[in-house]
Amino acid sequence: MEKIFTVRLSENQAAVEIIDQTLLPNEIKYLKLRTAEEIFEAISELRVRGAPAIGIAAGFGMYVLAQKIPFEDSVEFHAELSRLGNFLISSRPTAVNLSYAVKRMLNAANGKDKSFALPMLYEECTKIYDEDRAMCRAISENGLTLVKDGDGILTHCNAGSLAASEYGTGLGTLLLGKEKGYNFRVYSDETRPLLQGARLTSFELNHAGIDVTLICDSAASMLMKQGKISACFVGCDRVAANGDTANKIGTRSVAVNAKYHNIPFYVFCPSSTIDFGCKTGADIVIEERSGDEIKTKFFERPTAEAGVNCWNPAFDVTDAELITAIVTERGICRYPYTESLRELFGE
Amino acid sequence: MEKIFTVRLSENQAAVEIIDQTLLPNEIKYLKLRTAEEIFEAISELRVRGAPAIGIAAGFGMYVLAQKIPFEDSVEFHAELSRLGNFLISSRPTAVNLSYAVKRMLNAANGKDKSFALPMLYEECTKIYDEDRAMCRAISENGLTLVKDGDGILTHCNAGSLAASEYGTGLGTLLLGKEKGYNFRVYSDETRPLLQGARLTSFELNHAGIDVTLICDSAASMLMKQGKISACFVGCDRVAANGDTANKIGTRSVAVNAKYHNIPFYVFCPSSTIDFGCKTGADIVIEERSGDEIKTKFFERPTAEAGVNCWNPAFDVTDAELITAIVTERGICRYPYTESLRELFGE
Repeated sequence: MEKIFTVRLSENQAAVEIIDQTLLPNEIKYLKLRTAEEIFEAISELRVRGAPAIGIAAGFGMYVLAQKIPFEDSVEFHAELSRLGNFLISSRPTAVNLSYAVKRMLNAANGKDKSFALPMLYEECTKIYDEDRAMCRAISENGLTLVKDGDGILTHCNAGSLAASEYGTGLGTLLLGKEKGYNFRVYSDETRPLLQGARLTSFELNHAGIDVTLICDSAASMLMKQGKISACFVGCDRVAANGDTANKIGTRSVAVNAKYHNIPFYVFCPSSTIDFGCKTGADIVIEERSGDEIKTKFFERPTAEAGVNCWNPAFDVTDAELITAIVTERGICRYPYTESLRELFGE
Repeated sequence: MEKIFTVRLSENQAAVEIIDQTLLPNEIKYLKLRTAEEIFEAISELRVRGAPAIGIAAGFGMYVLAQKIPFEDSVEFHAELSRLGNFLISSRPTAVNLSYAVKRMLNAANGKDKSFALPMLYEECTKIYDEDRAMCRAISENGLTLVKDGDGILTHCNAGSLAASEYGTGLGTLLLGKEKGYNFRVYSDETRPLLQGARLTSFELNHAGIDVTLICDSAASMLMKQGKISACFVGCDRVAANGDTANKIGTRSVAVNAKYHNIPFYVFCPSSTIDFGCKTGADIVIEERSGDEIKTKFFERPTAEAGVNCWNPAFDVTDAELITAIVTERGICRYPYTESLRELFGE
């Protein structure tokens, strides 16, 4: 099975190379992005997606674009780099990692003529990549203390290498474990409506040589009843100060079922995902998306009449009491989280 | 919105009329089935589906076919009717209602010349229809005692009029309630992988003028958390003597979530669905179907690679302790079911 990669700097450093995720799992096609327009398009069209992966692509992208700026002088060079950075940020304005990476790159070049700035930019984009890789690896090392060889693991959505540098968060433990010789049996929820579990998770685990079985989201409960699941692994978008966690719609249902069946439910994330300014899940606003994602996207014909209403929240909130532990690069915090989350992971 | 019907005898009694359910929800097309081959094809291709509806179609079908038998003599007439009946049964050999209806029709004609048999056959097929209608109505009347105007109801799969005569089981309370002026807000799980909730339930409730919202199966938990659901309504395929219930895959997950959120979970069925020969859910064998139903059916392109394994059980088992009450035409039985199920609904 062919090994895949998500995003990297091309060997001659003149392009950002990405796997086009909009074509997965039916076509494995890598793109070389050389212009600001190409990078913009790849981010806005979700050819590269996942917060860390977008940040890494933007870092590499800024370095690629900087090389072609026709000004040597620091002021002109920085003005142009800044214009390009703002253009890239506008490709997905809500992606925090995107603007964060662009700002880091601009700071690295600040006050320097082009020839002095370029090595600094190279170093900085490599650092953004390496930092993500090291962080995901640390999360995964911590995760490995929670499982043993042969375990059955259920996962929802995609928090793997396709969303990050190498290991990802929710799937990192499985990918690292595979390298270390663990044999897991992984069950991947297909994850309606956008099918990230089918399109991405089962794809990347299969390519990593991991035993993966795709199921409908609603079948997880019966799997648990049959004793096939030792633990549930998910990534997350945001953790509130009390441990309530926002993640892809359906995560909550997995957690409720895990609780009923006495199966541990683990959330994996960088410690920066914990938002201490957000007291509980009640403060997290849930994005509601078009019903067409349920009724028409991916299908040959609509699955319901045009006149039928839909409710299509992108995320849900899993109550802290349903989460056995939150696993970050800085360690593992177990429920109950009163104060301990802040003590372990707060600034 | 156009009113629809599932199955009926044509006005001139020369055909079984059905709505072609394979075309729903994109096309509303009625078929007139006049020959044994046409009836066979409609049943085997699931143009008419749902145990009661198949039985009703077979009953009407036997009457339609009997009229065309070119023998007056009782022996020849019955031999030919019997041959036609066996042919219809072979269209879906595992459908109990199908063989039951055929046998009732053969008994009704037994020992009679054609001219005497035909009125008896008409009476019998009308009776099969009327009995189903009366039973579903009784289930629905009982169901109405469990809800109040304005309630939010979650349902999974399709246990409505498209599977039966008029009211169906799981949806009958909602359809009857609508007639009586109740306003429910109904949420319909799309019900992966075969999407009966999207294709059938949201379709028929919409056509009945009921406020229905389609959701992904995994979104039900968040709806419950938000307080939108007053009760869950499902049909079922089989109830064990202890109350464990087999129904469409995903039913168990709804029940587990309902339990966590303290929401009543009701199962609706004819009392004949309770199998006292089956002690618990552990004795119910779950049919596992092709992974293509998950990966390719309904989709423009496969959602996962061909090499990815799938686990695709058609049904799951909901533990008795998760079921608030079982509602039949003979009354309502509440958990715990020890002995009470047999006392109320046993022979």
